[in-house]
Amino acid sequence: MKNILGRELPDYIEGYGKIEPFMGAFNNTGIKERKSVKVSSVTPGEEKVLASIEEALDKVQIKDGMTISFHHHLRNGDFVLNMVLEAIAKKGIKDITVAASSIFPVHGPMVEHMRNGVVTGVVANYMSGPVAEAISRGELKKPAIMQTHGGRPRAIESGDLHIDVAFVAAPTADTYGNINGVGGKSACGALGYAVSDAEFADKTVAITDNLVPYPACPIEISQIYVDYVVQVESIGDPKGIVSGTTKITKDPVGLKIAKMATEVIKASGLVKDGMSFQTGAGGTSLAVAAELKEVMKKEGVVGSFAAGGVTGYIVDMFEEGLFQNIFDVQCFDLQAVESYKKNLRHQPMSASMYGNPHNKGAVVNHLDIMILGATEIDTDFNVNVTTGSSGVIMGGSGGHSDTAAGAKLAIIVTNLMKARLPIIKDRVTTVTTPGESVDVIVTERGIAVNPRRTDLLEKLSNTNLPVMTIEELKNMAEKITGKPNTIHTSDDIVAVVEYRDGTVIDVVKKIK
Amino acid sequence: MKNILGRELPDYIEGYGKIEPFMGAFNNTGIKERKSVKVSSVTPGEEKVLASIEEALDKVQIKDGMTISFHHHLRNGDFVLNMVLEAIAKKGIKDITVAASSIFPVHGPMVEHMRNGVVTGVVANYMSGPVAEAISRGELKKPAIMQTHGGRPRAIESGDLHIDVAFVAAPTADTYGNINGVGGKSACGALGYAVSDAEFADKTVAITDNLVPYPACPIEISQIYVDYVVQVESIGDPKGIVSGTTKITKDPVGLKIAKMATEVIKASGLVKDGMSFQTGAGGTSLAVAAELKEVMKKEGVVGSFAAGGVTGYIVDMFEEGLFQNIFDVQCFDLQAVESYKKNLRHQPMSASMYGNPHNKGAVVNHLDIMILGATEIDTDFNVNVTTGSSGVIMGGSGGHSDTAAGAKLAIIVTNLMKARLPIIKDRVTTVTTPGESVDVIVTERGIAVNPRRTDLLEKLSNTNLPVMTIEELKNMAEKITGKPNTIHTSDDIVAVVEYRDGTVIDVVKKIK
Repeated sequence: MKNILGRELPDYIEGYGKIEPFMGAFNNTGIKERKSVKVSSVTPGEEKVLASIEEALDKVQIKDGMTISFHHHLRNGDFVLNMVLEAIAKKGIKDITVAASSIFPVHGPMVEHMRNGVVTGVVANYMSGPVAEAISRGELKKPAIMQTHGGRPRAIESGDLHIDVAFVAAPTADTYGNINGVGGKSACGALGYAVSDAEFADKTVAITDNLVPYPACPIEISQIYVDYVVQVESIGDPKGIVSGTTKITKDPVGLKIAKMATEVIKASGLVKDGMSFQTGAGGTSLAVAAELKEVMKKEGVVGSFAAGGVTGYIVDMFEEGLFQNIFDVQCFDLQAVESYKKNLRHQPMSASMYGNPHNKGAVVNHLDIMILGATEIDTDFNVNVTTGSSGVIMGGSGGHSDTAAGAKLAIIVTNLMKARLPIIKDRVTTVTTPGESVDVIVTERGIAVNPRRTDLLEKLSNTNLPVMTIEELKNMAEKITGKPNTIHTSDDIVAVVEYRDGTVIDVVKKIK
Repeated sequence: MKNILGRELPDYIEGYGKIEPFMGAFNNTGIKERKSVKVSSVTPGEEKVLASIEEALDKVQIKDGMTISFHHHLRNGDFVLNMVLEAIAKKGIKDITVAASSIFPVHGPMVEHMRNGVVTGVVANYMSGPVAEAISRGELKKPAIMQTHGGRPRAIESGDLHIDVAFVAAPTADTYGNINGVGGKSACGALGYAVSDAEFADKTVAITDNLVPYPACPIEISQIYVDYVVQVESIGDPKGIVSGTTKITKDPVGLKIAKMATEVIKASGLVKDGMSFQTGAGGTSLAVAAELKEVMKKEGVVGSFAAGGVTGYIVDMFEEGLFQNIFDVQCFDLQAVESYKKNLRHQPMSASMYGNPHNKGAVVNHLDIMILGATEIDTDFNVNVTTGSSGVIMGGSGGHSDTAAGAKLAIIVTNLMKARLPIIKDRVTTVTTPGESVDVIVTERGIAVNPRRTDLLEKLSNTNLPVMTIEELKNMAEKITGKPNTIHTSDDIVAVVEYRDGTVIDVVKKIK
């Protein structure tokens, strides 16, 4: 079987099930069901605070084969996933599926749990580090499932991903389970990725290092969704929570790309009052924000909202009045946390509100301009941000395919070559985001517009920008680097890449 | 059949169904189900703004027999319910059930729709005025269902009350259905009663007189729950929205009762740091707040939260530092709206979070002190706030039985006699709140403590307060007024009174 992008897929994968092939970004829509949830009602006088993670595991009746979930707002500083898995392993529980919105290098200890059968399934929107590498080597029993930031809440809410127990890393929690991310030593701001987990899991456990008296206001996740609260010494390392990657690039090539991307945005006609904008936290993407800021100031434009994982750069634009609102699913730095804490127009959004394609309209549907990165791009504009040049998993969609699908103008900014390898290929190793969602590729040597966007091609033809076909761009790079070697993988599927609607856009094979 | 309070109930009521008798405030607990919901997914480019209520009715495919819902934050100033019913009637639609969180005198035009078969069912937590009177006279085809503020979201979330179309009166809405109550000419503040409706209805329509560009921050009800947005000239009359009833009594009897109630609170030992408090918006109840305020100031006590329908009196206490937080399901006056708008510790709560007995713990479960009123009280401490002395419906639980069930100390403040009728009777006309939830009755001539509360009886025995049995209190009044006449009703059931857990605590009979 092939999906609409021509990716070969089996009908059925052991440990995953029947494959629904990807048939187009908006092929699978219409009336969808939000699943029913079992709720253990709590009467006056009942207490929720437990003494330890062990006690919580007993209370939720953890057992072999369960799916447990985690959110990634503590990023590479997170202690919670490792603590919980260690406690589960100690109890002799096996065959756990870990549904973590993202997995980072800090979660390396999970590899040992994969080897000894404690963890046999992984579901994540993004993964990097030892766990991703071990999965690529075939060390997980079942194929991992790679989702998107919007696809995950879709799967949770629909019941495709049933969570037995959600563990919510809570920078602040009160004794009745109200949670926020703005207080405490592990403050991380918005908790958008944890919302569906808390609401739709059979049991929800808050794990906090800042247990406060009732009620912990402002409330991001309500007591009505939380069964138990456990206090621990520390839920994370603040140095890892606020990631160090959110800096504007100083590389002249990156800055050149950013300038060109901003010219494309200007030419598109989208720079006007009411505009909306999102950018990733990569150095070049942030540089686009810096360039766009100057354009907006110069032209006196006031945007409606900036969205995303939010950085200080976006907060600056907001505070200077360039955007009237921020939609925040996750804060990337302390400046974002501070702004989120104090400003009512710096608004939280759940991952479902951010990008779920099956609710009544996600925020991405309202995005004008989206700046994204890429590891590989093919001549159909399909983008890979899931696997690296060696075929090893080193990322995943995160919000890539959600925002690309929603935005009026989805721009990929990337160097034409990285580590002497060309970025544009005949065929990407893995498709993360389908070409139909990608409008423009901006590299330092040229710009390729998706031929579907005849309107944009026409607008750019009136500029001095180096617009060319994607084949020309590819050839330009290959003249320098030579044709890249094909990656040789085995036939074993180690990960299934789900598009945001739950259909399968690609699979990842075991590396040789 | 009799329920645990000895109220006679049939097994089955035509137009209602099988009766589950009330068997105690916490008899019906354990694992409950939050129902599944059908969601019409919205893709980029789809618009939600419609030209008129008529167009919305077409889009949601309104038809005979449907249940439509409304919330009551616009109180006696609400225009939306009447507008929608008029449009439905014009289309020739019949047999509609109106599930309105409360019904006020302004909704009088509904009586005509009851008479002509457009409206054949009513579900409400509170009703007063022409609709309540017409129901009491038997003018509604099916028995009305009287719920509580916590029971309603329980019923909606469980599926007991299935809403086909929710109409949300939106003081501010954006073009994609984000709603708040803090902006616009009809600003009413918190929108707690509309939350479950929006989340669990098959279709949700926002009706606004302040349509703003996307996004309308702060967001109280999210775009992900709203299908359509309709702009109208006016959703309500501001004079009716902010009710005139929220003033401290000037009546010396009421003030005396308030002083005595405050002495009871002091004696209970609950006035201490971390205390929580709620009071109704009646004049005597508010006078208790004023008295308690002085006590708290004098003793240097800082409470954790005040809850409720919120008035300026509560905001004053909050702003003076007597409470660290406010939980707000509904703002009663402009001062409450203003505070809610600007203060992050003035926190919204949905009706479900407020009082739903079947979620993972409502706010009422954390209440220390609750001040309530009563129309009648019987010697088992059962309270009627549903029907008046003539047997006509003139109220309903609202949050009465929810807060009484949750609070550590539920105090009824009432004159011993009203309009020359004694308040305490052998048997109340209708039971709204079961005696097991009521701890103390405070009248100007004496205080009765529920015999279950031996701890409280002991504490009050150390005071000079006029504590007596409820029989003594009853006799005292009857010596003055004489034994009240029994109300004669017919045998026809015009309303079923559901306790918050969905069991039937009483029925209301047609007046003769």
